[in-house]
Amino acid sequence: MTTRGLEPGPGGADGRVRAIVDAVRPAVDGGRFAIKRVVGDEMEVEADCFTDGHDVLRVMLRWRAEDNPTFTEVEMVALGNDVWHAAFNLPSIGRYLYTVVAWVDHFASWRHELARRIEVDDIRIASQVGAMLIDETAQRAVAADRRALTSWAVKLRRTAEGAKADAEALKALALDETLAALAARYPDRNREATYPVELPLVVDVHRARAGSWYEMFPRSAAAEPGRHGTFADVEARLPYVAELGFDVLYFPPIHPIGRVKRKGKNNTLEADATDVGSPWAIGSAEGGHTSILPELGTAADFRRLVAKASDLGMDVALDIAFQCAPDHPWVKAHPGWFQTRPDGSVQYAENPPKKYQDIYPFNFESDDWLGLWRALKGVFEHWIGEGVMIFRIDNPHTKSFAFWEWVIGELKREYPKLIFLAEAFTRPKVMHRLAKLGFTQSYTYFTWRNTKRELVEYFTELSKGPGREYFRPNVWPNTPDILHEQLHGGRRPVYVSRLVLAATLASSYGIYGPVYELLEGIPREAASEEYRDSEKYQLRHWDLDTAGSLRGLVSRINRIRRENPALQDDWNLTFCGVDNDQLIAYARQTGDNVMVIVVNLDPDHAQSGWVDLDPHALGVDEAAQYQMHDLLTDERFLWQGRHNFVRLDPARVPAHVMRLRRHLRSERDFDYFL
Amino acid sequence: MTTRGLEPGPGGADGRVRAIVDAVRPAVDGGRFAIKRVVGDEMEVEADCFTDGHDVLRVMLRWRAEDNPTFTEVEMVALGNDVWHAAFNLPSIGRYLYTVVAWVDHFASWRHELARRIEVDDIRIASQVGAMLIDETAQRAVAADRRALTSWAVKLRRTAEGAKADAEALKALALDETLAALAARYPDRNREATYPVELPLVVDVHRARAGSWYEMFPRSAAAEPGRHGTFADVEARLPYVAELGFDVLYFPPIHPIGRVKRKGKNNTLEADATDVGSPWAIGSAEGGHTSILPELGTAADFRRLVAKASDLGMDVALDIAFQCAPDHPWVKAHPGWFQTRPDGSVQYAENPPKKYQDIYPFNFESDDWLGLWRALKGVFEHWIGEGVMIFRIDNPHTKSFAFWEWVIGELKREYPKLIFLAEAFTRPKVMHRLAKLGFTQSYTYFTWRNTKRELVEYFTELSKGPGREYFRPNVWPNTPDILHEQLHGGRRPVYVSRLVLAATLASSYGIYGPVYELLEGIPREAASEEYRDSEKYQLRHWDLDTAGSLRGLVSRINRIRRENPALQDDWNLTFCGVDNDQLIAYARQTGDNVMVIVVNLDPDHAQSGWVDLDPHALGVDEAAQYQMHDLLTDERFLWQGRHNFVRLDPARVPAHVMRLRRHLRSERDFDYFL
Repeated sequence: MTTRGLEPGPGGADGRVRAIVDAVRPAVDGGRFAIKRVVGDEMEVEADCFTDGHDVLRVMLRWRAEDNPTFTEVEMVALGNDVWHAAFNLPSIGRYLYTVVAWVDHFASWRHELARRIEVDDIRIASQVGAMLIDETAQRAVAADRRALTSWAVKLRRTAEGAKADAEALKALALDETLAALAARYPDRNREATYPVELPLVVDVHRARAGSWYEMFPRSAAAEPGRHGTFADVEARLPYVAELGFDVLYFPPIHPIGRVKRKGKNNTLEADATDVGSPWAIGSAEGGHTSILPELGTAADFRRLVAKASDLGMDVALDIAFQCAPDHPWVKAHPGWFQTRPDGSVQYAENPPKKYQDIYPFNFESDDWLGLWRALKGVFEHWIGEGVMIFRIDNPHTKSFAFWEWVIGELKREYPKLIFLAEAFTRPKVMHRLAKLGFTQSYTYFTWRNTKRELVEYFTELSKGPGREYFRPNVWPNTPDILHEQLHGGRRPVYVSRLVLAATLASSYGIYGPVYELLEGIPREAASEEYRDSEKYQLRHWDLDTAGSLRGLVSRINRIRRENPALQDDWNLTFCGVDNDQLIAYARQTGDNVMVIVVNLDPDHAQSGWVDLDPHALGVDEAAQYQMHDLLTDERFLWQGRHNFVRLDPARVPAHVMRLRRHLRSERDFDYFL
Repeated sequence: MTTRGLEPGPGGADGRVRAIVDAVRPAVDGGRFAIKRVVGDEMEVEADCFTDGHDVLRVMLRWRAEDNPTFTEVEMVALGNDVWHAAFNLPSIGRYLYTVVAWVDHFASWRHELARRIEVDDIRIASQVGAMLIDETAQRAVAADRRALTSWAVKLRRTAEGAKADAEALKALALDETLAALAARYPDRNREATYPVELPLVVDVHRARAGSWYEMFPRSAAAEPGRHGTFADVEARLPYVAELGFDVLYFPPIHPIGRVKRKGKNNTLEADATDVGSPWAIGSAEGGHTSILPELGTAADFRRLVAKASDLGMDVALDIAFQCAPDHPWVKAHPGWFQTRPDGSVQYAENPPKKYQDIYPFNFESDDWLGLWRALKGVFEHWIGEGVMIFRIDNPHTKSFAFWEWVIGELKREYPKLIFLAEAFTRPKVMHRLAKLGFTQSYTYFTWRNTKRELVEYFTELSKGPGREYFRPNVWPNTPDILHEQLHGGRRPVYVSRLVLAATLASSYGIYGPVYELLEGIPREAASEEYRDSEKYQLRHWDLDTAGSLRGLVSRINRIRRENPALQDDWNLTFCGVDNDQLIAYARQTGDNVMVIVVNLDPDHAQSGWVDLDPHALGVDEAAQYQMHDLLTDERFLWQGRHNFVRLDPARVPAHVMRLRRHLRSERDFDYFL
């Protein structure tokens, strides 16, 4: 990747190119990977540009859709310290490229110098130089502009050469604003410097950044206990999920479940005939990754469910787990996609001494890797055909990175609306690589970030660190695999505070229900993160109308998220000081919409403290009162200045989710608050 | 600069390459520019490397001289968090390239898994798999190794297939350390991943990093007042400069000085016949950039001076100022290298309303730019031929960046010992660009960093910031152009403290003498940074034996610099807390050599305070006494623990330059201090 051939110099490019374009940003790994935005975003670009000496630069940001060879240009503005800035609005989803060009502008340099000239002889000579530059500019101009510029040059030259040229009058003529603006439209760009990289940008749908996810097992959706739930049952459940306010309804794998080595309840090795098995043990004689478990219904049922969900404003997301049960049709049809053991059997998944005999991983070093890649791509294409545009990818970090970059790139070129959520609970650099190579969103460490310090550090990194250009968090207080110790015992204040944190710290969040809203928190063993009697291995039946359900709170928090744009942008997070380590407070601001959230992390005791805010930064007069409207409880508090008192009792509601409302300045108004 | 063609996938590279090599560092702008080191340095490289799943990686750092196609490999070691590290010693000056490769190692993965296997059946099957891998490895091995590996595979397979295989014995055979080490020498690297960039590295002579510079005007070196100094006079001055302990003796331009528009004393516009003019107004009928001012002597005199300086351990550095006096021969010979004004005259330098009629700048947008570039390169080649390897470049930021990158690159390929010091007192990004594109060293803002806070911030940036990979500071308390206001009036404590700061904060520093050691500090006007009666425009005569001269101190500080490696490495600087803002303290440590410097910034009052040190970090037992030996005054202080008292009186010496000497642990020793 040497660029020596492009360097100015003998045998290279034109050595007269004097402008320098450096450090165009944002950029991920020098343009190796795309940055991410959503449609409608203002895309801001900066670059370091300068030239030798005192000449004036002009700098253009250039951007284009990847499949359109024509760039649009936006003039960049100098911010000082040789940093240039421009912004443009992202009109539609898809892939874009952007770069920066700059050139030494002789006309602008001439004008800049002329303005500072004092002696009449200098101004006369400079005006003659200027007339030449304007003549050259006129040659590049279209008809009417050309005439205007030419006549300006003639007049300037004549006046400069005249016997009694007056310094001030001549200078005024030479510096004519209108004619200068006209000339600026026809610059000499022959010696333009171009940044050597076109930086890639992926523009996603808004839901790629902000959305509320609800995970549920369709097979547990039956109205009566003991019966295997169906897509029709889920359809009947849709109004409930819609009332909870979720945007994305996400199902574990819906495919036929292997019968060979099927796991029993609570992940026991022996299953009896009634055991339904794990949905992640995919494939049986009934079909594989493009089939539907017959007990759930038909393809037509699924399509109707997707359509009904859509009518209620919800997208259906599917879990894509690229692994096979021993009786998956591919095991026989494509033995080369798996590793075989010396005894001829297929290698099951293992992480010694642990063994997963019910799961065969794909061998991404297969000689037929290309056949495998294409088949896996076909799985996505099948479900896209069935109306699914959101995929949650199971353990992507155990499959080839090259495959993901290829398959996501190919699919998103054809279907740019697609959203891929990476379920990679693994090491930071691996998670970041997956995000760089194309995953739209990623699960996070939120589940294990529990103290104030942990939360502040982690969400500061997520919202302010360089990774935010490509790593979009989707935070979950629980998943079918993770019942965090905090949630053991189903203590309401913990469930409420973790829900509020997830829903207000990140723009995408999700819960695994109905266990979450029903406060189900019984682990398989004391120190386990596994649920006891987990739906992963058996049918469950849930009484959604239980008195203690959090459904009202969930519904409210999701409405708050939807109505407040400040909760739909991850970058706007600012933590506030509080003189109590059990209280965490943060502000999020988007335009006029300002939210301030305070959460009591102590489920046992009421906690109080003083919250530090910068009213000025939030658009409030430091001396004026402002109203904090708690959208959870509808309480209203009058705050003033930089330090305000809060008290949160876990026995009531352990959190404030407050919208700042500014006080009107005039006593004449009837409504005192906007 | 797209790499899509190299991406794995259909039509691209092999999709079975599963290793990831990311973020190889250090790197400047993704490899666009070289990082810098000096010969003998340990070059440390890190990279983020990982793969999908649990397989084991092997990672190699590869490096080679630019003109040698063969890489040397060093195995990298995992530091945790997917960061890999290796180092190698830089054997000689020149240009190098380095990169990182990694592969999924099936033998190492197999071994890693086997070690954790427990059940005998698993171990038997795994041993059979291992025997296959060892057989494959044997195919890649040379004769004796091949036989050893093959017989290992045979034995392993036979034991595994035997009826009464014992788990522990089989495992021990399979995990044999010696045979595993042998196998590791023959890995299967067919699916190796290579970082897409070969990162460039320039290795300079040691003096490129550390050196003490002395600037003087040869024409003021005459033994008696009023006579124009000659190279022979400078030759007589060499023992004095050598006694001061300098490594580099640097002269302003030594070429014929223009007579047209020559400036008079104190930069007046009218010169009389006796005025000698400014050495930076280069060129007259007597010659240009490759000629010598006849009053200074002949080329032979110059060569003898260079040789004599070399005998005393000093390099001669020349000032290269690419600009012409109006009577420079090139103005007539190459009018196309300059800009002409409408009246046909050559455009002189100006920055309206300021004018420099005695200076014609080159026009780097000349149609004959290539001719100009080659002529300027020829100037360097001429002086290299005369024995000069160090060039101080006057105002490089007013000449084309592309030219510098080309000319420094070309010259250093042929003469890798060359040192180019950029005299660019300009904006940070411009200074950094010049450093990136090849300047060996740069002048700094040190002259204008005077308070403790300013010094701490600036030298922390220089020694710890990312720019340190390419930007090497050379700090000067004064230059012929910069008599800082602090130095006005020639107050000894200021001159001493600024000298000590320059000489101990940076590994390269310089003074403009003899004005500095003679405490000459009379400005042309009160607020001016120009010297009154500056040598830039007239001859001066200096009495080097003046009683107040700092020559003894300069000599001592330069000896301290030479004898203490800790003062020859810019990256080892650590500031220490002091509870007094007039005292600045810092430690520098290289191996066993630990220096602690404390400077009183207040020239009027004695100041005292407590200096914070981390004895542990400096290799001293926290509870033990250690000796601080002030190498300036030969005083010795006994310090202990983390906080120690200092008092510095500007009336005596306003600085401690202390070497830490560790206390011996045994009372039996006669010498208590090492």
